[in-house]
Amino acid sequence: MARYQVILAYDGAHFMGSQRQANSRTVQGELEKALHKLGWSDRSVLIAGRTDAGVHASGQVAAFDLEWSHADDDLVRALNANLPADLAVREAHVVAADFHPRFDALSRRYCYRLFSHPVRDPLREKTAWRTWPAVDGALLAQAASLLIGTHDFAAFGSPTGPKGTTVRTVMKAGWRPVEEDKWQFEIQADAFLYRMVRRLVFIQAAVAQGRVSAQVVAQSLAGPAGVPAGELPAGLAPAHGLTLVEVTY
Amino acid sequence: MARYQVILAYDGAHFMGSQRQANSRTVQGELEKALHKLGWSDRSVLIAGRTDAGVHASGQVAAFDLEWSHADDDLVRALNANLPADLAVREAHVVAADFHPRFDALSRRYCYRLFSHPVRDPLREKTAWRTWPAVDGALLAQAASLLIGTHDFAAFGSPTGPKGTTVRTVMKAGWRPVEEDKWQFEIQADAFLYRMVRRLVFIQAAVAQGRVSAQVVAQSLAGPAGVPAGELPAGLAPAHGLTLVEVTY
Repeated sequence: MARYQVILAYDGAHFMGSQRQANSRTVQGELEKALHKLGWSDRSVLIAGRTDAGVHASGQVAAFDLEWSHADDDLVRALNANLPADLAVREAHVVAADFHPRFDALSRRYCYRLFSHPVRDPLREKTAWRTWPAVDGALLAQAASLLIGTHDFAAFGSPTGPKGTTVRTVMKAGWRPVEEDKWQFEIQADAFLYRMVRRLVFIQAAVAQGRVSAQVVAQSLAGPAGVPAGELPAGLAPAHGLTLVEVTY
Repeated sequence: MARYQVILAYDGAHFMGSQRQANSRTVQGELEKALHKLGWSDRSVLIAGRTDAGVHASGQVAAFDLEWSHADDDLVRALNANLPADLAVREAHVVAADFHPRFDALSRRYCYRLFSHPVRDPLREKTAWRTWPAVDGALLAQAASLLIGTHDFAAFGSPTGPKGTTVRTVMKAGWRPVEEDKWQFEIQADAFLYRMVRRLVFIQAAVAQGRVSAQVVAQSLAGPAGVPAGELPAGLAPAHGLTLVEVTY
């Protein structure tokens, strides 16, 4: 018996999120079904980051204890043979018996893609948010730079942990052009509040469309006392633009 | 009444190709249904390029005659309001009354994406072919360069037109890296044989994996007499990696 860490990739379109729920198709539920076929019989696997319905992953991390007498690559193959087409195990490694993918994580990295166009685009909208009017690249960069550092993100999400703090440290945040009128946001932080990335993308797009001033964002990062709630528009960027890229330990 | 040219984009995953067929969901069928709601009553729209089930498009072209008293952008909006989420009209323009999207086309441009990895990857496999072992970039480039020019492509597809010739002129063909271990092929030609792009990609991947020599490809381009059929492996790259990008007039 050993504890295994696996890296998961999934197309989130047809999952009701990462965490197991009764009567819903979830990443955790599908992984546990595949593990049962390999003789696993624990109550549940551990998962690093909760992703909402529709959110994708290229580097989600899960862990479980398994009696497995073959090579790691064979475990990857055996699991993938039992997983649906929209979920795959990319890697498997033996880790310390007390490894916990969520509590041991040092940072999470997400990316979010958006493009600006007045007309819808079925191919690009599979994994990117179409938003209009056009976003200004310099304003996106300015908004992202405000996020870097340790701030109180209470205006941008709800706490998930028992401690209830809304202070998070963002190590990296920035936008880069990926093709004509399309932008990719990357953000790495020690941890994220619930829906924080989608909320941050929504607000940055509002800044880059001239609807919100960067100053209001800067004030909001001072915590609940910073800015009257009414000045920061409500809203979330849609789930299908978001991908969990990496969890570091 | 005027003839309109429209640029279509679609995610091909849930279409049985571009051409109308009885009892199948097709691009042409869905466009005609949307047009009927705007008062169009002709027998069929004209479409530039036939795409197979699963093949995507960002620049497919269709044409039809319509009585429309509003602006072109209003026609785009009215059609998109009646089209399913995986099909959109990107642009609409009035053209000459005798414009034909297929017979007037000067060239077609396709792109094909592949990536090399031993393990499947649900997100990337939506629009790219996973092939393994790894492809060699220099061999891909060498294979693509052979295609440029006027050749008899009989070994790479079947004729679709009434003339039955298998000679085609390729203006551009080349591969570029798009991200780690991922490649994008672009090819532009006056016209393509049936399934020619997928066949060319399959053979080039075989060259880049060291399974077929570039010399065999060069000989095959001399036409049916060039190479014994047995030396060129049978097979097609899968439809989901292919996108019709542009038709020029």
